[in-house]
Amino acid sequence: MILLGQPGRDWNNSGVTGHGLRYFEDYLPGASYDCGSFSISEAQIISFATQFDPQPFHVDPEAAARGPFGGLIASGWHTAALVMRRLVDHYLSAEASLGSPGLDEMRWPNPVRPGDTLRVRATSVEARRSLSKPDRGILKTMIEAVNQDGRTVMRATATNFLRVRPDSDS
Amino acid sequence: MILLGQPGRDWNNSGVTGHGLRYFEDYLPGASYDCGSFSISEAQIISFATQFDPQPFHVDPEAAARGPFGGLIASGWHTAALVMRRLVDHYLSAEASLGSPGLDEMRWPNPVRPGDTLRVRATSVEARRSLSKPDRGILKTMIEAVNQDGRTVMRATATNFLRVRPDSDS
Repeated sequence: MILLGQPGRDWNNSGVTGHGLRYFEDYLPGASYDCGSFSISEAQIISFATQFDPQPFHVDPEAAARGPFGGLIASGWHTAALVMRRLVDHYLSAEASLGSPGLDEMRWPNPVRPGDTLRVRATSVEARRSLSKPDRGILKTMIEAVNQDGRTVMRATATNFLRVRPDSDS
Repeated sequence: MILLGQPGRDWNNSGVTGHGLRYFEDYLPGASYDCGSFSISEAQIISFATQFDPQPFHVDPEAAARGPFGGLIASGWHTAALVMRRLVDHYLSAEASLGSPGLDEMRWPNPVRPGDTLRVRATSVEARRSLSKPDRGILKTMIEAVNQDGRTVMRATATNFLRVRPDSDS
């Protein structure tokens, strides 16, 4: 069987993640995956927040310096979106991903500031076959982003639907 | 006392929301607020997802048509960011907002498709003074976004810190 990649995933033509995750069955509870790191600039923080979350401590460095965080911080939604990109590139199989019904216990325990570098880790915590839809499994993943000082800046438990391995591939 | 608005809130110089919400004490449990509506285009969906969530069903209309949703859908993070903008503009007091430690039970029960118009509603569900930080209260808010057909496309319970009314203003 020849595996064809999905469009829109320019990092990898095979549809398989760098961790070798292809179908639901490959996500083993307890396994933890490094999804790489990224840095965030003041310009990026202001640009995102101007569009989506224009509170003073996200968009105005002078007001932010006098505000509750003593300086500009990223919108939590910006952090979440950047973390999602790392999960798409390094954890969610392009071939198997069937979307997400939601997530739980999303937390931003420490602020993200300009120049921070965040590392993303995904840990599969629960995996079960769907009872109603036999083509898929339901995966729960603990997502964490940690800054260059080792402080957690975001965590959440995500739920994802993933295709099970086709019979022809077993 | 003269109330000065915070920078970065061009819709309202007073810092008071259109609903008259200014300080923590103004958010009464049970009160529900219409935060307005917005539409989302295919170009916006693809632009956001190309940057943050480049799964085929968010970025490639042809692949999406053959995919699990039968067409292109918005990234849930895009919906969340657009909903946040409505909350900043219509619900969170620019004067009192001290950020958010997180949110719970975030759900995307139905997909958001190109051309959809979403209405946002915020309902204060719990409000209590902080025991450790007397300058603030802790507000829990049920957030809902509903499409033009009355289907809920996002809901979540957000936690926000808000300044209490200063003594000089009582």
